[in-house]
Amino acid sequence: MSRPPPRLYVESDLRESQGVELDAKAAHYLLNVLRLGTGDKVALFNGRDGEWLARIAAASRKACTLTPNRQTRPQEPASPLTLAFAPLKKSAMDFLVEKATELGVGRLAPVITDRTEAARVNGERIAAQAREAAEQCERTNVPEIVAAQPLTAFLADWPADQPLWVADETGGGRAFADALGSPAAASPRHGILIGPEGGFTPKELATLAALPFVNLIDLGPRILRAETAALASITCWQALLGDWQA
Amino acid sequence: MSRPPPRLYVESDLRESQGVELDAKAAHYLLNVLRLGTGDKVALFNGRDGEWLARIAAASRKACTLTPNRQTRPQEPASPLTLAFAPLKKSAMDFLVEKATELGVGRLAPVITDRTEAARVNGERIAAQAREAAEQCERTNVPEIVAAQPLTAFLADWPADQPLWVADETGGGRAFADALGSPAAASPRHGILIGPEGGFTPKELATLAALPFVNLIDLGPRILRAETAALASITCWQALLGDWQA
Repeated sequence: MSRPPPRLYVESDLRESQGVELDAKAAHYLLNVLRLGTGDKVALFNGRDGEWLARIAAASRKACTLTPNRQTRPQEPASPLTLAFAPLKKSAMDFLVEKATELGVGRLAPVITDRTEAARVNGERIAAQAREAAEQCERTNVPEIVAAQPLTAFLADWPADQPLWVADETGGGRAFADALGSPAAASPRHGILIGPEGGFTPKELATLAALPFVNLIDLGPRILRAETAALASITCWQALLGDWQA
Repeated sequence: MSRPPPRLYVESDLRESQGVELDAKAAHYLLNVLRLGTGDKVALFNGRDGEWLARIAAASRKACTLTPNRQTRPQEPASPLTLAFAPLKKSAMDFLVEKATELGVGRLAPVITDRTEAARVNGERIAAQAREAAEQCERTNVPEIVAAQPLTAFLADWPADQPLWVADETGGGRAFADALGSPAAASPRHGILIGPEGGFTPKELATLAALPFVNLIDLGPRILRAETAALASITCWQALLGDWQA
């Protein structure tokens, strides 16, 4: 079977016959890693103009220009789902960002809680992972990466008309599939908040439970790692409220 | 906060005051890695007798005997869900086994398809990963690991009264949440089958579609990696038919 052309996220506008200059890293990837050359096909998307089939118009050692020929897919709307999560250790976090992108979240919001272990959040690393996963899973957009903020600031900023589904690993929440059938689910935009390994502190949980837009949810009887809880709750949301519905 | 005692899977029967001798590896882990000693608490499970709180009764350089004091949790029944999957490359496979165990599958069945990339399946590695994940997520049992077999043999052996939900990445299937509401879902035991990277061949897909117990399902509009598809479908199943329901 013939392979589909490689997919690349670019910043430039995409219009018919309007040349797109790649940065050195993307040029290196196409020309030296994939060994493509003039005339070869590449799929491009920028999160605004849909997906375009382009061809390599000019290639030198460190530069590469592509010419978009035709739009192959329209632009998808951004997903209305935000995943807020306490930053994790490197491999778990890479994994979480990759899978959350594949599963179609619209925004990724790192939130620092009392028990968060990661001292600093590398936003560029998160953005790079999300971009790569978006290229691979055929999204026409990349999740927006929100700057890391403390839990209190995150909650203070949260729009009161959007439900925030918070995984409560102490068992105080409602089964997520049931909760998604409740009136609270009737909102066009939603958020999911997952705590760190070790969970929220009792004080944080009390603060969360008292907020009118927060709905505590339960993800079954086993102890899930933070990244597993994130993916499982995104999946539930997509299957019951999101774009898994035909 | 005080840490819960470490949890260990053991082969021995668990009965009050009946000593449990650990193997050298487990003894090393408790005594040298965790630096526990005589009198310290350990939680034990064997997949048959529930979970027991035990204490270290005797410890030498390479041996360790534990005495179960009391049963802290009853034995859970084994999950009626089998995950059948085309073996993946090392890190994706480790990940799949860990997450599938956390999400509560009862059996893991590696199935060799035409496009399966992994040449050999290391059953012991799968078993070790599953054991470790079970210890971590507080299951009282470990998934059963079935020996790898070709797809045709797997399908020939599959009990005709059990639905097999097969992820069809060509888009021919029914949204999984809808399908789980259909009469086919009214069975006490179920299986999920996930193909390799690159998917099933058209011939395999035709064979699958023709089997009365096979239900082709759809997991949304994005291209999911094989391990993501596995976890997403287990999650849906648990949330809608499995033990996520209160």
